[in-house]
Amino acid sequence: MAVEIKKFFFIVLRLLALAATVVAIVVMVRSHDSAQVLNLTFTAKYNNTPAFKYFVIAEAIASVYTIIVIFLSSKSLLGGLIVILDMVITVLLSSSISAALAIAQVGKKGNSHAGWLPICGQVPKFCDQVTIALIAGFVAPVIYFVLLLCSLHAVLSPILAAKL
Amino acid sequence: MAVEIKKFFFIVLRLLALAATVVAIVVMVRSHDSAQVLNLTFTAKYNNTPAFKYFVIAEAIASVYTIIVIFLSSKSLLGGLIVILDMVITVLLSSSISAALAIAQVGKKGNSHAGWLPICGQVPKFCDQVTIALIAGFVAPVIYFVLLLCSLHAVLSPILAAKL
Repeated sequence: MAVEIKKFFFIVLRLLALAATVVAIVVMVRSHDSAQVLNLTFTAKYNNTPAFKYFVIAEAIASVYTIIVIFLSSKSLLGGLIVILDMVITVLLSSSISAALAIAQVGKKGNSHAGWLPICGQVPKFCDQVTIALIAGFVAPVIYFVLLLCSLHAVLSPILAAKL
Repeated sequence: MAVEIKKFFFIVLRLLALAATVVAIVVMVRSHDSAQVLNLTFTAKYNNTPAFKYFVIAEAIASVYTIIVIFLSSKSLLGGLIVILDMVITVLLSSSISAALAIAQVGKKGNSHAGWLPICGQVPKFCDQVTIALIAGFVAPVIYFVLLLCSLHAVLSPILAAKL
């Protein structure tokens, strides 16, 4: 019974992570806003920034992986491999959110030393959408980290039990 | 004997990671260059950019952690905890290198859509130093990932051996 509850808990966590990555992708891909600067229309889109493209790709990889793992279910033989793959996904997600956050911070505050002006004043709608995508994108690696701790505990518990 | 070799291999990997993080910190902190723009002297330093400050802080945390772990040696009781802490450090290092890389990419190529001009033309010495710091900073999480795989293998091997 305890095993069933654990399996159910793992699947719920993975579904939450999947929801977070899917929301992050959809909001980021649909984000756009235009501004008129000196009679020129300037459109802000996620794919103008390599860091945001990397973010979307990483979230997409994590989504596909999560779907595959949910369907495979947690067979004991795959235990070790899933721990390692969960680790790769956690690193990938936290790397992509960090890159996107670094660029979003410049977009919001600018960098006066480098002469980079903030753009959120011109394209506030775009900035709000990117912020929502980043919040959703931040939830996913946190859930994956919790999952990893749980998987590690599940993998380690037989050793700990044997030691008692 | 095999255990001794494994311990030695782990310590060598940790020393390499320590070397990488220390080089990354020293090069990043010492990086600077000045340029004259319209009679104004403009100095590029790492601490003008939040992402580079985060990079230095993350590398410093990883360095201190690595020194502590080397001195503690790998006691079997700490096995599980060290795997988890190694995981945290791997995520921290890859997150900080990604944020720094995202900003360095804008510094190198600019972003014409956002109106952010590249700055490497004006401060090439600064850009070269940051590049060296980022290469060193990239080596550290790779070594940590290898360490993590080895630790995980070491932790998992008793289970696998018991199953045979």
